[in-house]
Amino acid sequence: MTDNQETPDAEDATPSRSTTLPPPPPLRPPCERLSCHKTSVCSRSYFVVVMVFFHVYIINVIALLFYVHYNSGQDDANRSRDAPTGNHQQRPESGRPPSKPEFLRDVSLTRIEGIRVGHVQKVSLVPGKVHEMRTLSLKPLLFEIPEFLSEDECRVVMQLAQLKGLMESQLMVQDGQEELAKELNLSPDEIFNLLDINQDGELQLHEILTHSRVRDGIWLTPENLREIYAGLKADKDGNGLLSLEEFRLLSNDAFQRFLMQQGVKRSQLVRNSRHTWLYQGKGAHQVLQDIKERVTRLTRLPPSLVDLSEPLQVVRYDEGGHYHAHHDSGPVYPETACTHTRLAANTSTPFETSCRYITVLFYLNSVEGGGETAFPVADNRTYDEVSLIQNDVDLLDTRRNCNKSNLRVKPSKGTAVFWYNYLSDGRGWVGEQDEYALHGGCVVTHGTKWVANKWINIDPDYQRQARYQQLVSQQPEDEEDEEGLTLNPDIQSSDIHEDL
Amino acid sequence: MTDNQETPDAEDATPSRSTTLPPPPPLRPPCERLSCHKTSVCSRSYFVVVMVFFHVYIINVIALLFYVHYNSGQDDANRSRDAPTGNHQQRPESGRPPSKPEFLRDVSLTRIEGIRVGHVQKVSLVPGKVHEMRTLSLKPLLFEIPEFLSEDECRVVMQLAQLKGLMESQLMVQDGQEELAKELNLSPDEIFNLLDINQDGELQLHEILTHSRVRDGIWLTPENLREIYAGLKADKDGNGLLSLEEFRLLSNDAFQRFLMQQGVKRSQLVRNSRHTWLYQGKGAHQVLQDIKERVTRLTRLPPSLVDLSEPLQVVRYDEGGHYHAHHDSGPVYPETACTHTRLAANTSTPFETSCRYITVLFYLNSVEGGGETAFPVADNRTYDEVSLIQNDVDLLDTRRNCNKSNLRVKPSKGTAVFWYNYLSDGRGWVGEQDEYALHGGCVVTHGTKWVANKWINIDPDYQRQARYQQLVSQQPEDEEDEEGLTLNPDIQSSDIHEDL
Repeated sequence: MTDNQETPDAEDATPSRSTTLPPPPPLRPPCERLSCHKTSVCSRSYFVVVMVFFHVYIINVIALLFYVHYNSGQDDANRSRDAPTGNHQQRPESGRPPSKPEFLRDVSLTRIEGIRVGHVQKVSLVPGKVHEMRTLSLKPLLFEIPEFLSEDECRVVMQLAQLKGLMESQLMVQDGQEELAKELNLSPDEIFNLLDINQDGELQLHEILTHSRVRDGIWLTPENLREIYAGLKADKDGNGLLSLEEFRLLSNDAFQRFLMQQGVKRSQLVRNSRHTWLYQGKGAHQVLQDIKERVTRLTRLPPSLVDLSEPLQVVRYDEGGHYHAHHDSGPVYPETACTHTRLAANTSTPFETSCRYITVLFYLNSVEGGGETAFPVADNRTYDEVSLIQNDVDLLDTRRNCNKSNLRVKPSKGTAVFWYNYLSDGRGWVGEQDEYALHGGCVVTHGTKWVANKWINIDPDYQRQARYQQLVSQQPEDEEDEEGLTLNPDIQSSDIHEDL
Repeated sequence: MTDNQETPDAEDATPSRSTTLPPPPPLRPPCERLSCHKTSVCSRSYFVVVMVFFHVYIINVIALLFYVHYNSGQDDANRSRDAPTGNHQQRPESGRPPSKPEFLRDVSLTRIEGIRVGHVQKVSLVPGKVHEMRTLSLKPLLFEIPEFLSEDECRVVMQLAQLKGLMESQLMVQDGQEELAKELNLSPDEIFNLLDINQDGELQLHEILTHSRVRDGIWLTPENLREIYAGLKADKDGNGLLSLEEFRLLSNDAFQRFLMQQGVKRSQLVRNSRHTWLYQGKGAHQVLQDIKERVTRLTRLPPSLVDLSEPLQVVRYDEGGHYHAHHDSGPVYPETACTHTRLAANTSTPFETSCRYITVLFYLNSVEGGGETAFPVADNRTYDEVSLIQNDVDLLDTRRNCNKSNLRVKPSKGTAVFWYNYLSDGRGWVGEQDEYALHGGCVVTHGTKWVANKWINIDPDYQRQARYQQLVSQQPEDEEDEEGLTLNPDIQSSDIHEDL
């Protein structure tokens, strides 16, 4: 009730000020300004003016106080819902984040309600059109919006990508575990112990694959592993299992050399596609800017967060192309840095992930055969990493087992799907990774598949995100969009919705 | 921007009013009131007063407009999240519901975030203590709060229930379907067709049981049904299936008479327990009022909705007691009435349900053996009524198959669990029934089980709920708690949370 304090102030101050103020500067007498003719009448009309002002003023203040009181009541109720831990000190009543090192968390990220699988809600994304958004799963929270892009927009995006040129998407993944093992000084016995999930003293094929399916960018199947065992004579007793002794004799280098000798086919890669990146800021093709704005409306997130996210990724899968199931962004522990806020984080940590809170995936064409987006464990009752490979069936293998996925989305030109890679933290910010967001691109059996990805990067550590945004907004170059740089989404996102 | 319109109004109107107003009533000359001495100085000091007023007024209005603009921005952002359909006309900007037949929907029901199974959030329910609330499932949205009641409170509730006396809980369920069939004038052939789920021209046991497991309050098992077939010689060819011809010959009366002749054991009932109801309004035992208030804080719902809900139900299961899996409240179609708002609904419909939005279940003692609360399909990927009976295993049978339920909660003295029997409608009100909220009480194998149920009744039709609350608040008797009768929760629930 800041305004309540102003009211008595104004009332009390006026008479005292009028006595202590210096005499007014030599103005023309006020009578002349109001063109009245007699001094006695004049002083009465002055009195009337004062009284009218005074009453209008008081009525106005009372009306506004009522309005403000009612409004802040609603606001508090909404906030208490957003902060169910009763942890109110985290989200104080204050306004915008001050320019201090410690940022007050006054921003609440919208998370769209899924209600139930099959629920349809109408959304306004472009003037004069209502889109339907259907809930495809709750774990992950996943939606489908047909006709999100027009045919023309799809064509323009594909053409722009081709003009820019696409590069091989192959991720030459370094086996991080190997380096980590060196760093942590783990002995072969300790590594064996870590890999032996069921602790039976033998390494089953699925125990090795659960731990790392990817070796130097090559996707390992149970058959591959058997071939390698045979080639390296690793499994001396030929029982298909590795004992501790067999494991000790198996050198990492030999493993790698064997893989490389064999030669690698594209179909053996984790990801068999080409892609490019299209910037969406000022000066970009209008279609790209439109898409960015539409994504902001769709996700109801602060425009600044969308503006500061990765560019649009356009991907082409030729016949035979695929992308085995993966997470777009990894788990975040206190020591994990986000790629986008790393500069502002001011820490050095070996752990880093892209912190892609949301993935928006656009289908730019309808594929003749295959190419579905598969979510192997969507809405599973439980998530069990180990059970993802059972009886030589690897649910993450999108060349073989897409048909066993819980959910498959068929590509349809112009349709967008989007999902959250992270849960809520229960207080309106990004929480833990959602393991159920595991997904992949099934093999394209006929034709070509074109998709685009828009990722929205948000650091689960609010302080780092805020510091990063402040840093970017202070950059001297004036190219950045001023309006897009505040973290406070409340006015901006409401503006967007009021436009509709 | 209603206030924006007032500003020019005030400015424009003042001079014209000052000229058109009747001469002011004979007051003492204003000079005397301000105790100034010279007329010329007087007109100057008047001018200063006018100017000071005018400036303070303008500054104040500008400040308030800024404040209101910023506030309503936040508000709109919050609202647009609550109303993701873009269906803004349903929740206009106006204030409290007017006393007209059509109520404006300005209330948004809080729905607690589950985040993920196992998520723990801290809640403040009583001064000086923090409770932990753990998410047990997302479908239904189900939480557990240990130590919700103290040992003393549990004891008092059990004693009060015993003082009042408990009655048999047996629901002598009339087979509604039979009456409905008569009403709808269905022929035996049509009924057969309805029952024959897989449309193979034969009625399997599970097809009959899926349709109605309960006959005159008796829970039918596949074995029961076989006995009845044998006793009535219904299954002439003895293949365990009923053909249409066999079905035509099977008279409803014979079925009923056979059941009654057999005699009914308590263990054959749907529900084998005793219960009573304890009122929680003014004048009730302080413990009962405390529990009601704590439930309000827990659920973050408007106190009026909790106040106007059913009394506390206290249930005792003796050894051998059980309650087969059921829904606490049924599906709601446009023509379905809620029991609690029926008087205000002004309609006559054969469909009625209790509209229990939330069930809060308190364990008043720790049971020696058995007595778990089972949720057979909690967090299942899909809900399929037919697959609830497979191979003579009926998941709804809590005497036999509790061990096959997805989730079982073990009774522990003082612990509360609560869940939502309905989904959200996506606009802050009650939506469809949550089929996954199916639950039952497993058979008590050792000792006695005491529980209490607090149901919060809300009509999914906002208009009917509002009309009902208005009706109740207009009752002449002054016993009702004034404060509890407004539907507007915003100020009240925020008050509660601010107290913490």
